[in-house]
Amino acid sequence: MGLKSWVVPQDKIFFELFEEQAEIVCEAADHLQTIFTDYTDIPEKYRQMKDLEHRGDAMAHRVYEELNRTFITPIEPEEISRLATALDDVIDFIDSGTNMLLIYEIEQPDEFMVEFASVIRQAAEEIRTGVAGLRTLNDPETITGCCIEINRLENQADDILSKALQNLFKTKDPVRIIKLKDIYEHFEIATDKCEDVADVFASILIRHT
Amino acid sequence: MGLKSWVVPQDKIFFELFEEQAEIVCEAADHLQTIFTDYTDIPEKYRQMKDLEHRGDAMAHRVYEELNRTFITPIEPEEISRLATALDDVIDFIDSGTNMLLIYEIEQPDEFMVEFASVIRQAAEEIRTGVAGLRTLNDPETITGCCIEINRLENQADDILSKALQNLFKTKDPVRIIKLKDIYEHFEIATDKCEDVADVFASILIRHT
Amino acid sequence: MGLKSWVVPQDKIFFELFEEQAEIVCEAADHLQTIFTDYTDIPEKYRQMKDLEHRGDAMAHRVYEELNRTFITPIEPEEISRLATALDDVIDFIDSGTNMLLIYEIEQPDEFMVEFASVIRQAAEEIRTGVAGLRTLNDPETITGCCIEINRLENQADDILSKALQNLFKTKDPVRIIKLKDIYEHFEIATDKCEDVADVFASILIRHT
Repeated sequence: MGLKSWVVPQDKIFFELFEEQAEIVCEAADHLQTIFTDYTDIPEKYRQMKDLEHRGDAMAHRVYEELNRTFITPIEPEEISRLATALDDVIDFIDSGTNMLLIYEIEQPDEFMVEFASVIRQAAEEIRTGVAGLRTLNDPETITGCCIEINRLENQADDILSKALQNLFKTKDPVRIIKLKDIYEHFEIATDKCEDVADVFASILIRHT
Repeated sequence: MGLKSWVVPQDKIFFELFEEQAEIVCEAADHLQTIFTDYTDIPEKYRQMKDLEHRGDAMAHRVYEELNRTFITPIEPEEISRLATALDDVIDFIDSGTNMLLIYEIEQPDEFMVEFASVIRQAAEEIRTGVAGLRTLNDPETITGCCIEINRLENQADDILSKALQNLFKTKDPVRIIKLKDIYEHFEIATDKCEDVADVFASILIRHT
Repeated sequence: MGLKSWVVPQDKIFFELFEEQAEIVCEAADHLQTIFTDYTDIPEKYRQMKDLEHRGDAMAHRVYEELNRTFITPIEPEEISRLATALDDVIDFIDSGTNMLLIYEIEQPDEFMVEFASVIRQAAEEIRTGVAGLRTLNDPETITGCCIEINRLENQADDILSKALQNLFKTKDPVRIIKLKDIYEHFEIATDKCEDVADVFASILIRHT
């Protein structure tokens, strides 16, 4: 039995909020790529990232508030809450990784950061597609495809991290190692959080299709 | 529909256990502030923290045991288990952050540690208020207020961490950086765990008010 | 009421998959001990670990797929999914800790790594026993015993970590500190993930016995 038949207008709010969250995920991932392409004015560009993070936060809180208000929800309340949290976590780790460029006064991004940004951007796109598919759930194959692709991208991020660390420890400069290791790990965790989003997608598919 | 009407005496045990857990959270947060105010005799003071951590552990296990015994629970078994775990996590991260003062042989706390301790102490108080409110759930606004305040404090801890790291990397002493970064991060995670407690509060409010 | 009465043949697949996952946990833990006993040919030995990790991944995905296919499951779908994830996480952290031996070009394991491997191996055995007990749930005491033992082992891993860090910081070599701290922490997290498995055991016992 599909979900479509019993979705009533008032419930659409959740899909709209998730779509806005996914949109912010994409904008944050885009912005990260922009930062690495034109690595100037980092404090100003970080302020823009922080704005996205605040918009993401506000959106997640609107989901929790709506859950308080809505008696019947289209998806299980727990899944709604897990999805809002997971989407928010993706944004948070893109934000905190970017913040570290500033805190650690990184003068130039390296090839590994650029690779992470590209993987995150691709995963963000899959998240947008997957979230859009939740509205009707009439094409579970597309959502399953997003989950598989996000998993593949997360594995790719693991490999980038291994490669980046192996390269980093050649430098023998401990302070530099501490800084870059922390940045790489934050971006890698951003892709783990994308995988959490995919896990909620999978769990919604299990229950509702 | 409020919860009050169907709470039967045998179920009160959960509220009592949560209140004892919240009490230990407050005692641990207090003890952390005491340690930083009078930074002497750290091994002995850490033993007292470890005692609190063991009392917290024992209390969390009593919750799980009671869940095994009790057929009908006032709140969903899952929420009871999540709340006990989240409260225990707060205590664990206060404990492990404190333990690092000892492991890393920190000779003096710095202003950032003192700020973290103050934020943790305030969040602990909100947790105590929130837990007390669960018993009757007849004042959801107070619990919502605790959630908002804990979220604010968690954001404040994020800012302290940024500031602390920025300051730390001026020292150029890598071993010192590794040690203090680890301590700061543990205290920051303690406030993340306070936010997990607030998330369970919010989810209990959704279901039961 | 026990679970046994309503387990139908088609549901046995989950127990079989969990037993295979627990088997891989044991093999990975064994392999880690072998690596430390005969610390040669690490790239080749790591390839074998990675094979185990891939087998573990495939098994976890089969659980999720079966959940998609099976209408009635013996245990709650959520617990099935949490257990598969927790077992997979144990394997992942054994794998990633081992991977770091390679990335960081560790020339010799130390006594702490050997102690971690021993604790992980013992916890893996408890996991195997606990998973085997899930099939009929007619001996809850045994599973409870596994949970207690896994908790004890996790505490032991905490103590090994404290001792290992205290020892490590005597070296004053920051790059070495960064590398070994990371490896120790990964093995300690592997035991945290064993505790997550035990938490799912406990939660299954709560609902089904």
